[in-house]
Amino acid sequence: MLRLVMPEAKTLRYSIEAISNLIDEGSFKISENGIYMRAMDPSRIAYIELQLSRDSFETIEVDEEVSVGLNLGELKKRFSAAKPSDYVEISMDKGFFVIRFKGKGTTTFKLPIIEIEEEDVPVPNLTFRANAKLRSSALKEGVKKVGIVSDTIKFILTREGVSMVGESDLGEVEFLLERGDEDLISLEVEEEAKASYTLSYIEDVVKATAASEVVSISLNTDHPLRMEFFISGDAGRMIFLLAPRIEQ
Amino acid sequence: MLRLVMPEAKTLRYSIEAISNLIDEGSFKISENGIYMRAMDPSRIAYIELQLSRDSFETIEVDEEVSVGLNLGELKKRFSAAKPSDYVEISMDKGFFVIRFKGKGTTTFKLPIIEIEEEDVPVPNLTFRANAKLRSSALKEGVKKVGIVSDTIKFILTREGVSMVGESDLGEVEFLLERGDEDLISLEVEEEAKASYTLSYIEDVVKATAASEVVSISLNTDHPLRMEFFISGDAGRMIFLLAPRIEQ
Amino acid sequence: MLRLVMPEAKTLRYSIEAISNLIDEGSFKISENGIYMRAMDPSRIAYIELQLSRDSFETIEVDEEVSVGLNLGELKKRFSAAKPSDYVEISMDKGFFVIRFKGKGTTTFKLPIIEIEEEDVPVPNLTFRANAKLRSSALKEGVKKVGIVSDTIKFILTREGVSMVGESDLGEVEFLLERGDEDLISLEVEEEAKASYTLSYIEDVVKATAASEVVSISLNTDHPLRMEFFISGDAGRMIFLLAPRIEQ
Repeated sequence: MLRLVMPEAKTLRYSIEAISNLIDEGSFKISENGIYMRAMDPSRIAYIELQLSRDSFETIEVDEEVSVGLNLGELKKRFSAAKPSDYVEISMDKGFFVIRFKGKGTTTFKLPIIEIEEEDVPVPNLTFRANAKLRSSALKEGVKKVGIVSDTIKFILTREGVSMVGESDLGEVEFLLERGDEDLISLEVEEEAKASYTLSYIEDVVKATAASEVVSISLNTDHPLRMEFFISGDAGRMIFLLAPRIEQ
Repeated sequence: MLRLVMPEAKTLRYSIEAISNLIDEGSFKISENGIYMRAMDPSRIAYIELQLSRDSFETIEVDEEVSVGLNLGELKKRFSAAKPSDYVEISMDKGFFVIRFKGKGTTTFKLPIIEIEEEDVPVPNLTFRANAKLRSSALKEGVKKVGIVSDTIKFILTREGVSMVGESDLGEVEFLLERGDEDLISLEVEEEAKASYTLSYIEDVVKATAASEVVSISLNTDHPLRMEFFISGDAGRMIFLLAPRIEQ
Repeated sequence: MLRLVMPEAKTLRYSIEAISNLIDEGSFKISENGIYMRAMDPSRIAYIELQLSRDSFETIEVDEEVSVGLNLGELKKRFSAAKPSDYVEISMDKGFFVIRFKGKGTTTFKLPIIEIEEEDVPVPNLTFRANAKLRSSALKEGVKKVGIVSDTIKFILTREGVSMVGESDLGEVEFLLERGDEDLISLEVEEEAKASYTLSYIEDVVKATAASEVVSISLNTDHPLRMEFFISGDAGRMIFLLAPRIEQ
């Protein structure tokens, strides 16, 4: 017996979109606690974790925890066919993952479950001395603007604000949210931090902003970046870690 | 003397769009009864017929029936330049088909009339034992969803409802409208029927849904599919027949 | 000291877009009178002039006139990142042109100032015997419609109205604004005039219509076309001259 119901497709739709930009296949653990997935991208530069707690669902009936391997590109296409407000029901049937949307008519997709070799993804344990919470739309804005000039993004967290900076022979760009800006929800800086990252990974992940209104960003100088996207209030979250680029 | 006036360009615009996806050139018969065209696609798998009755027009002044051969791709481009609400006037002038739109300014297109060899298109005479009437938007939805998984679509008409089904090694999809669904206007099934068709022809034709709010679908098992799109109420109609794919 | 402030980015954004379609690099003269630029396109068929007067700006602080050479494609990309309603501040900093947008956060772009060889652009001095003033949206409409049939556009100014005409083996098109049409603001024709021009130049420039609600068109038979776009009322203007195509 496996049956999960979500009243609106959008949470799953946008989360899967963000994940599928980074990784091709994923192994979802489904239990009475909800859905859980973690993976590293093939280059092992980015780590991604998705938690959709029991509270993300309207109904959750699971006899025992199962692991479901899926092609994320195909999963994404199925969810793209759903309207954000469609009702979603998830179940399993003889080697297939079954997704049913109810909106205009009832659409049932059966997606083959695939074998995924369980790899040992180390859960990084990190503490950060600079933390900010932003509206996700502001992160998206900054990433877009840095992308006009550069393929590397530098985050700078100071007591005054959060900057995203890019530089190339096409010039420079700085996107600044100062303390007090309504898009900067909180800012806690024990030690000022800055570090640079490959922009394309972050561009892929900020697509998750459609599923999330708030994101927290945590940083230590020249160390990995941690972003945590809060989904449907606090019922779900997506954690994203990215290795820094060390400039020569 | 040939002069036809339509108060709004959209009916012609969307009908021509649908036809031009299947065939390159068309011979339109224009008489005091309106506009009539029928043709088979080059592969002779699909048959299409367009009838715009006298009631589709505000004014219709035609001395005698004429046959006008036109390049449908070019005709479509002219109509794409019109706003759906533009007033349209059709006439002829020395080897040209003349289309005049009034909206922002007055635009007059003269399109060369071409020779089209009259071919003997047999009017298929078919009776169907399973018929459904749907909102066109629901047909569009189903076709789109089946297209995610498959390039073949199977229609299934039972006493319970209408299904559109696709299957491939990417899995399965079923789009179901059950009796009682507001998008399923009527359902008359003397004998349950199912048959498979090449999706791309139907994808091309459902573009006509913009000109039509209601479509009827008729079927016998493993026989041709008949779709009839009702245009501007009942003043016009587009009939579409498609040969089945017989699965081995 | 150089600092110019505009309350809304859109005027600069759309003007730069129009210019950058025709020329790759531009030398802007910035003084207490505003911003001024003129250039010919590489093929020397089109001349373009941009004037943003003192009144276009909220604040203008300039010690002495400077010439600033910029890559227009890059400049356009920076402005595309601004919302039309963003506040803009322009300044200079050690070899960089500095553009700051305030909207969602504060974005600062530094764009390298480049050397531009000052070329002697002759200011054409022309008088015209046929003049019309149109809503820019109507010019845009006419240009789009002619483009369906032809890559040459003929303007015809008579006492009755303004026509834009195209012709090819795909047929003919005429877009007509008659005297009295609300999109034709004024029409003064001392001598009727018609002349043909390469459409692509005009297509590029009509993108400026987003910055301008009104355009004046001036013509003598088989002579250059002059278009003047009025920007933010009358605070700025863009003048565009185009050599005619003499039909054989």
